[in-house]
Amino acid sequence: VIVYGRNPVVEALRGWRAQAVSDIWATAAAAREPWLGGVAVRVVAAAQIEQRCGSPTHQGVCADAGPYPYRGADEILARTDPLIVALDQVQDPQNLGSICRSAECVGAAGVVILDRRAAAVTPAVCKASAGAVEHVRVARVRNLADFLADARRAGCWCYGASAPAYEDGANGHRGPGQQRCAHARRAAVVPYDEPDYKGGVVLVLGSEGRGLRPRVASQCDQLVALPQLGRVQSLGVSAAAAALLYEILQDRGGG
Amino acid sequence: VIVYGRNPVVEALRGWRAQAVSDIWATAAAAREPWLGGVAVRVVAAAQIEQRCGSPTHQGVCADAGPYPYRGADEILARTDPLIVALDQVQDPQNLGSICRSAECVGAAGVVILDRRAAAVTPAVCKASAGAVEHVRVARVRNLADFLADARRAGCWCYGASAPAYEDGANGHRGPGQQRCAHARRAAVVPYDEPDYKGGVVLVLGSEGRGLRPRVASQCDQLVALPQLGRVQSLGVSAAAAALLYEILQDRGGG
Repeated sequence: VIVYGRNPVVEALRGWRAQAVSDIWATAAAAREPWLGGVAVRVVAAAQIEQRCGSPTHQGVCADAGPYPYRGADEILARTDPLIVALDQVQDPQNLGSICRSAECVGAAGVVILDRRAAAVTPAVCKASAGAVEHVRVARVRNLADFLADARRAGCWCYGASAPAYEDGANGHRGPGQQRCAHARRAAVVPYDEPDYKGGVVLVLGSEGRGLRPRVASQCDQLVALPQLGRVQSLGVSAAAAALLYEILQDRGGG
Repeated sequence: VIVYGRNPVVEALRGWRAQAVSDIWATAAAAREPWLGGVAVRVVAAAQIEQRCGSPTHQGVCADAGPYPYRGADEILARTDPLIVALDQVQDPQNLGSICRSAECVGAAGVVILDRRAAAVTPAVCKASAGAVEHVRVARVRNLADFLADARRAGCWCYGASAPAYEDGANGHRGPGQQRCAHARRAAVVPYDEPDYKGGVVLVLGSEGRGLRPRVASQCDQLVALPQLGRVQSLGVSAAAAALLYEILQDRGGG
């Protein structure tokens, strides 16, 4: 797998798959900059880098870093009082990258994503995460509701971001705020700053278009809602993730 | 100007430039969906919509909505106890769109951007904002430091997001956290949850690569920093905006 861009390459060299980085290509200008830290690179033309990585946003550098080293969900759950982000069918690589980046910044134990019908950790996601995926654990699971059940058995509390908080569908603003939570069979919707987020916590975020699926929402202990004062009532999922993660971090006394 | 995508078109029809929307084109499938609310559209092939708007992400609909209706910075400052977001050379349309969307969601009085060396409100920004730019005021100014001086004279407190909080440069993680704030000639750096954000507030965010420029930082009353617990120490500017805006909203008792 060819990762590209300055941060992704630099962080790949510092992260878990550092030993897997086999080749680095850089333009003459990029090779002269200090951020590669004296690592041996092959100096090539920018066009060759673009051809190799398939993106024009390579910033003059790319590297063969091997496959992305997914971790096990068990490993993430085994951390002490973990803060975990679980994503239900998030499709957009920009959103996945941004959420991984925010998760890494708040010291989350890991990010859990679906192995189907969801964005995987592609080079575009590495780029969007500014290399944060090299340091935050990312696990893929087959079934998110089952993972949440495991997490609850392990002592975690699962908080689902209430759909109006990050609805992206064209009708996201049409109904009253709670309408789309009718699918939540047992979890109550509370303001996002009401729960006590100490201990093991899983923050569950739904897809850009449809929010949490019913079976996933039903595995949440509570649904949490960010206030929406505007007319659009449609916070982006990565913005919602950042606002919720920093509230959780603050509540946990971190920082 | 051709706006495209479901949310941007629907919100253009509900926002300030609703009267300027002269033509709407939609695919047969999109025209049948309820979200256009019975507005008259020209049914065309998807290829024609893509040709007209220049993007494949049109979701089957585009509209000629006239030029984006920028507002005056004075108008934004004249609001009672305004919450204002000011952007110093934010370049990425995705970031500008996401920040406008978050600003609209927290009920901000407006977003102030530079008229040069910064992303303007293009159709791609409308799309990234999910149409929020049709409802939140956006003003362009020539000089951001001058705007901040005006804001302070008008009684606002200006808070600059400390550079490490959203650094995007390859070296963002290299130095100690406060190093990049050396340019701040008089503003102290405090944890983001320390200030009292009531009254008129301007939140100032810097560019993806370099943070706040010295002259802009010098016009801030305080610099505020989000905790960075990870190894990358590099929160994205739109994620930082969301985390800070919701903290400010909470402190103001909103929501």
